[in-house]
Amino acid sequence: MSGSKGDKHSVQLDKAGIGIEDGIPLNVSVGGIDELRADIQRLMDIEAIKQLKHAYFRCIDTANFGELERLLHDDVTVDFVGGNYEWKLTGKDEYVASVRSAFTREAVGHHNGHHPEIQILSESEATGIWYLADDMWIMTHKFHTKGTAIYWDRYEKANGTWKIRETHYRRLYEISGLLDENPQFSSHHLRKHGTEV
Amino acid sequence: MSGSKGDKHSVQLDKAGIGIEDGIPLNVSVGGIDELRADIQRLMDIEAIKQLKHAYFRCIDTANFGELERLLHDDVTVDFVGGNYEWKLTGKDEYVASVRSAFTREAVGHHNGHHPEIQILSESEATGIWYLADDMWIMTHKFHTKGTAIYWDRYEKANGTWKIRETHYRRLYEISGLLDENPQFSSHHLRKHGTEV
Amino acid sequence: MSGSKGDKHSVQLDKAGIGIEDGIPLNVSVGGIDELRADIQRLMDIEAIKQLKHAYFRCIDTANFGELERLLHDDVTVDFVGGNYEWKLTGKDEYVASVRSAFTREAVGHHNGHHPEIQILSESEATGIWYLADDMWIMTHKFHTKGTAIYWDRYEKANGTWKIRETHYRRLYEISGLLDENPQFSSHHLRKHGTEV
Repeated sequence: MSGSKGDKHSVQLDKAGIGIEDGIPLNVSVGGIDELRADIQRLMDIEAIKQLKHAYFRCIDTANFGELERLLHDDVTVDFVGGNYEWKLTGKDEYVASVRSAFTREAVGHHNGHHPEIQILSESEATGIWYLADDMWIMTHKFHTKGTAIYWDRYEKANGTWKIRETHYRRLYEISGLLDENPQFSSHHLRKHGTEV
Repeated sequence: MSGSKGDKHSVQLDKAGIGIEDGIPLNVSVGGIDELRADIQRLMDIEAIKQLKHAYFRCIDTANFGELERLLHDDVTVDFVGGNYEWKLTGKDEYVASVRSAFTREAVGHHNGHHPEIQILSESEATGIWYLADDMWIMTHKFHTKGTAIYWDRYEKANGTWKIRETHYRRLYEISGLLDENPQFSSHHLRKHGTEV
Repeated sequence: MSGSKGDKHSVQLDKAGIGIEDGIPLNVSVGGIDELRADIQRLMDIEAIKQLKHAYFRCIDTANFGELERLLHDDVTVDFVGGNYEWKLTGKDEYVASVRSAFTREAVGHHNGHHPEIQILSESEATGIWYLADDMWIMTHKFHTKGTAIYWDRYEKANGTWKIRETHYRRLYEISGLLDENPQFSSHHLRKHGTEV
């Protein structure tokens, strides 16, 4: 394991290590109606950001590239490090193209983001920590990857819509390797709806 | 796989394909106290609907049929399609009876609903998209099923309580088949608390 | 299975069985601005408690004992029952020491808490039900445990901060046993960051 990319980049995954600071506290204002209005908007922003990331995971695993594109900031930056890969890129077009090439008719992806910890920094900036659990088969290579990771993101709101501006993860664990045989899937959505190989 | 029921019903699982429209936006009102009151209620409704669906998953896997019944609209419709099954029915009584017959002392169910995307349509109507991850053993048949699915639901509020009015899912993937041996469970809650076979 | 500790303690995991009562309903007040302020705070409290538990799971699996300590009430009580173990203790120091001794460089932990059902009882008291899904390898013993459980917790707020006051779980299922070989992990965060053995 000593030579894996994941180890080379191993940082302590605490808030200091990943650069996440406290946002506006979850304390209601003692002020009047305009302060309460801002408090309600902050709760709505937290909900909107959760839905944004939830849609992201739904879109990748269903190969819904049209909706995926609308979730990403034009200048989104991606920094994911797994045991045997680094996935680093800049820009919405490059990100969607990369997802498109991975989620083919010969792939099965299962990506769930748990445990949202959303911090609102201002009316238009927020951060989030998530706990990824994922499972993916690339059947053209009989390759299976399974594991978990800590995600940390930045979100920006423009024209009333929150988008993913920056996204990172590092693995907690990963098991990956070649299979003797691909699984026999009794359902496989991407078989019809994934990118043509 | 070509003849599986899941493929016959394969639809693109995007919002247009499953008939989910945008709800009331997550933007606070510019109005006065009564408008803010409605905004707060909408946030409470989103939380209540999440708790409703969370309770649903807890109730099926713990064989808690009494509480399950209270989560369902009298005229609930169910439309689930897996690789080798369709589960379609109408009405609370039929739904509870069907769950009761599946979650026996010889079953182990693990059903988690992730990534809620709740849309409030009005004071008494809402929709939700969820991402199911499930794992189930039917030990009388040495049968195991594992997979994921996209759920889409409709909820109705009557007498102050949200209930499940309509529920659908289609698989993203499913692996199912006969086992050589059932697992040796070191804990098995339904062994005592499931329906008697 | 008949002699396992899990069975000896088997209770019906419904709300009556675990002592969870309804909290303040998710209905907005008909009153004025001070009543709305209290409603908003309750929504913020629900969010804060979710983030508290989410941080708990992140902290144990990343061996982040410093942050973990700040999540726990000084007099926290723990009551977890698995198939072959009971984990019962009192007090933050004992709890952190116990987690510290389990999450070593030879361990891989994957603990996710799903389906929060948070009930606010007052300005400073709340309860929560969660659905645990977990997977853990203790490589010094080639021991693997996998399963699910229902959690029920009590939370207390003091000096503006929610903490875990009481936490319980009972298994829905558990599969545990010795492995022929430990998995080959292509990433393993605790290898560097866990407690030294």
